[in-house]
Amino acid sequence: MNTTGYKSHISSQFNAELEDVRQRVLAMGGLVEQQLIDATKALMELDTELAEVVFRTDDKVDQLEMYIDEECSRILARRQPTASDLRLVHAVIKTITDLERIGDESHKIAKMAHELSTQERMYENMVETQHLSRQVSQMVRGALDAFARMDADAALAVVREDAVIDREYEALLRQCITYMMEEPRTIGRVIDLIWAVRAIERIGDHAKNIAEYVIYFVKGKDVRHTPLEQVEREVRGE
Amino acid sequence: MNTTGYKSHISSQFNAELEDVRQRVLAMGGLVEQQLIDATKALMELDTELAEVVFRTDDKVDQLEMYIDEECSRILARRQPTASDLRLVHAVIKTITDLERIGDESHKIAKMAHELSTQERMYENMVETQHLSRQVSQMVRGALDAFARMDADAALAVVREDAVIDREYEALLRQCITYMMEEPRTIGRVIDLIWAVRAIERIGDHAKNIAEYVIYFVKGKDVRHTPLEQVEREVRGE
Repeated sequence: MNTTGYKSHISSQFNAELEDVRQRVLAMGGLVEQQLIDATKALMELDTELAEVVFRTDDKVDQLEMYIDEECSRILARRQPTASDLRLVHAVIKTITDLERIGDESHKIAKMAHELSTQERMYENMVETQHLSRQVSQMVRGALDAFARMDADAALAVVREDAVIDREYEALLRQCITYMMEEPRTIGRVIDLIWAVRAIERIGDHAKNIAEYVIYFVKGKDVRHTPLEQVEREVRGE
Repeated sequence: MNTTGYKSHISSQFNAELEDVRQRVLAMGGLVEQQLIDATKALMELDTELAEVVFRTDDKVDQLEMYIDEECSRILARRQPTASDLRLVHAVIKTITDLERIGDESHKIAKMAHELSTQERMYENMVETQHLSRQVSQMVRGALDAFARMDADAALAVVREDAVIDREYEALLRQCITYMMEEPRTIGRVIDLIWAVRAIERIGDHAKNIAEYVIYFVKGKDVRHTPLEQVEREVRGE
């Protein structure tokens, strides 16, 4: 059964190439997803060793990004794909850029875990930060699942979730600023936490981007910069 | 004379298509460059009308991005480009993502101009912010010039400049935090300024990305995630 949505080819070699690229995108996605989970744990527990694990994964992520990019170029040159195959390659080229940036932002969170570990421990705003990060991790997972199955409905759920994340992020930010004003001696620490929170929110944006590429692949329609209601109509095929 | 570095085609129609895409990328670049200049001016002079101009340009930028992306897909499907033509299309697909994000970050700067206009005027850290923004504007200009001429040396200069920007950004950030600690009543305002400064620094990153795609196009070598010395050797062809 072909569950991926792209057509079978007379050339089984071409099929194998597309499947290989798809698998590597998912592997890259798995790496950055784990980076986010580890970085958040490092931040919560001020675990600098775990932060180091996040840093060490960067190289693997970068190598995969460059490999997949090159592989896409090779496929475009040799196979000259059309229709849904071409859309798949196009979606992959875009997706790996966002995956790499998710890794980048996780790196920033881990860096803030390092920074905070050298300062007086802070308990305020941490539960909310962890909560936000869990939701964003689920968005990343959702975007990767949608990509794996090329499922436009699952992708739409991720796009929808981003609006929720943005609201919670704004609220958490206000809370951090209020806390700084009340306790100016915590400014240094709270600013570090704010950078981490900001990185988490950005990861949500990247997950949303990936979901939009999935919708582009399935529906053949570019839904970036499009109001949510219209995206929903596109996915329902109205 | 062919100054763009991509070869002439027997099909003059294909030539015209590539030239059209190239021109539109430069047009899109011109728009986001102006957005950055206007947003910074709005921030310095707390000019909310100019901030509105920045907001209104978003749509044009988004439309151009989607148009160019679609045009690249069409070219890939119909012309099945190879070698340097394929690298050009690949570089364009990547470049417009970064141009769109430069527009996004400029939008954030303009938003902070709006925020700050409702608060007590702040004079500290403003000169440094303007200085940073001017340098980043020059990086964006440099990246677009390098793209227009497909000039790897000019692109290398942009990559080099990014390290300077990062250092100045860190210094300015520390200065803002110190100021907040000394004058806790300014926290709200300084945080807004920090968001703007952060957006400026991110724009420098995007300009660097574009410069790296130019080097990829000219040298056929992916120089992302590569130490600067090695990038320099690649460009010199060693």
